[in-house]
Amino acid sequence: MNQTIATQKLHRTIRAFKEGSLSEDIIKELLEVARRTATSTGLQSASIIRVKDQKKRNELAKVSGQPYVASSAELWIFIVDTYRNQRIAEQKGVNTDAGRDMDRFFQGFSDGAFMAQNVLNALESLELGGVYLGSLHNDDRRVIEILELPELTFPIIGLAFGEKDQSPQLKPKMDMSLRCFEDVYKIEEDYLEIFKDYDEEMQTYYDLRDANNRVDSFTNQIATQYANPSAKRNEILDIILEQGYTLNPRL
Amino acid sequence: MNQTIATQKLHRTIRAFKEGSLSEDIIKELLEVARRTATSTGLQSASIIRVKDQKKRNELAKVSGQPYVASSAELWIFIVDTYRNQRIAEQKGVNTDAGRDMDRFFQGFSDGAFMAQNVLNALESLELGGVYLGSLHNDDRRVIEILELPELTFPIIGLAFGEKDQSPQLKPKMDMSLRCFEDVYKIEEDYLEIFKDYDEEMQTYYDLRDANNRVDSFTNQIATQYANPSAKRNEILDIILEQGYTLNPRL
Repeated sequence: MNQTIATQKLHRTIRAFKEGSLSEDIIKELLEVARRTATSTGLQSASIIRVKDQKKRNELAKVSGQPYVASSAELWIFIVDTYRNQRIAEQKGVNTDAGRDMDRFFQGFSDGAFMAQNVLNALESLELGGVYLGSLHNDDRRVIEILELPELTFPIIGLAFGEKDQSPQLKPKMDMSLRCFEDVYKIEEDYLEIFKDYDEEMQTYYDLRDANNRVDSFTNQIATQYANPSAKRNEILDIILEQGYTLNPRL
Repeated sequence: MNQTIATQKLHRTIRAFKEGSLSEDIIKELLEVARRTATSTGLQSASIIRVKDQKKRNELAKVSGQPYVASSAELWIFIVDTYRNQRIAEQKGVNTDAGRDMDRFFQGFSDGAFMAQNVLNALESLELGGVYLGSLHNDDRRVIEILELPELTFPIIGLAFGEKDQSPQLKPKMDMSLRCFEDVYKIEEDYLEIFKDYDEEMQTYYDLRDANNRVDSFTNQIATQYANPSAKRNEILDIILEQGYTLNPRL
C-alpha cells in the first residue's frame, strides 16, 4: 500500500483548525492539482472562488451554520462555470442557446466535484485537514450574492481547510458489499435486517461534535433526516434556472 | 512534493489498456478507498456497479461510442443511489416524499463524483490508468436499462481502467489565474484576447487519438462543441424525473 491510498483510507473530516495561514507554496501546489483534474470534453467548466475577505467569510459561515467556515486557514468554493465558455462561443459568433442547457450544467458540476476531491486528496497528503461544506446549499441565492456569481455559474461545494487541530475517530461506513454491485443493481428485501450490523457499529462511534453522546444508528439517522427535509434546499432547480440555465422544455 | 501530488500533477487520461485483469487485492483496496470517501451528512447515497458481463460491456460501449469501454480490465459505473435510504426510511415508517427531492439527488451526485475521483487518484497512484466516461450520458435511459437501475438511482459517470498501454503527452490546461478568483467572480471584457496564449499552447499538443493532426485551439474547440449540442443528452432532467425524483413544483 502506498502513501496515497494509506492517506485515503484514513480520511476523516476535520472541523477544527489551528490558527495561521498556509504558505503560498502550498496554495500554488493545490491550484496546480485543481488545474490538472480531468474535465469533461476538455471544457474546463468549473472554477474556484478563494474567499479571503473576512466579512464574506462571516456571511458564508451564517449560511452554512458552521463557525469554522469563518476561521479555517482557507475557504474555497467550487462552482459550475459555463459563463466563460459561453462568452467565448458568443465572441466566436456561434449560436449559444445550447450553452445554457442542463447537459452543460452537469458537465460543469462533475468537473467541479472532481476538482474538489482532487484538492482534498492533495491537502490530506500534506497532513492538512479539510471539511466539505454542502451546507452552503442551505441558501444558494445568498452564496451567489456574496460571491457575485454571474449567470451560468453555480456553487457546487465549499471546502474549508488548514492545519488540523483535532484527531477524530474513523467514522464507520457501510460495507461495500451493500454499495458495489456486479453487472446490475441488487435490490434487497429487508434493509433494516441487512443494516443491523452497521447500525450496531455506528453506535460504538463517538462523534467529536458531541463527545458525551453516542451517535444514533445509521437507519435512525436516515429516518430523522428524511423526516426533516429543508424546503429551501429543495429550491435548487429554481435557482439553477435563475442562473440562466434552461431546463428542458418538455418538463 | 510527495507521491500523491506528483501523481496528480501528471494526470493523463488513458484510453488504451493492456489485456488481462487486475488482482482482486487491488480491487479490494480501491473499494475501500471508495468506502472511505467523504459523504454528505453521512448518507452514503452513491453506489458502484462493477460491470463484468461482456455483453453488457459491449452494450455500454455502444452507448459511449468508445471501444475501450468493452475491453478495459475494469468498468465501474458510479450512480446516485437514494433508493437504499428511501427503503430504509419507508421501513422506519417515515413520510418519504422528501426523499425524492432534488436536494437528495444532488447530495448523491456529489457523493458519487467524489467517490469516482477518489478511486481515480488511488488507481493512478498504483500506476494504473483510467478514463472517465461522461459519454454514457449519450443515452442514460439505455444505461439505466442495461444496469437494471431502480427508481431513485441515476448514472453519474463511468470509469474504465487497467494497466496503461499508452503514454500520452500532458494536455495543456488553462492557467488557474483564469479559473481561480479571489472573493468574487471576475468577469473579463474580452475572452478571446485573454485566451490567446492558451489557444497557441493548445495547438502545440498532439492528441494520441489523432496523432497526425494538431488539435484545434481551445476557443475553436468551444465554438465547435457549442455549435453541435446533443438533444438527447439534454433530456437529462426528464430522465431524472422518470427515475422517481420530484422536480420542484414551482418550476
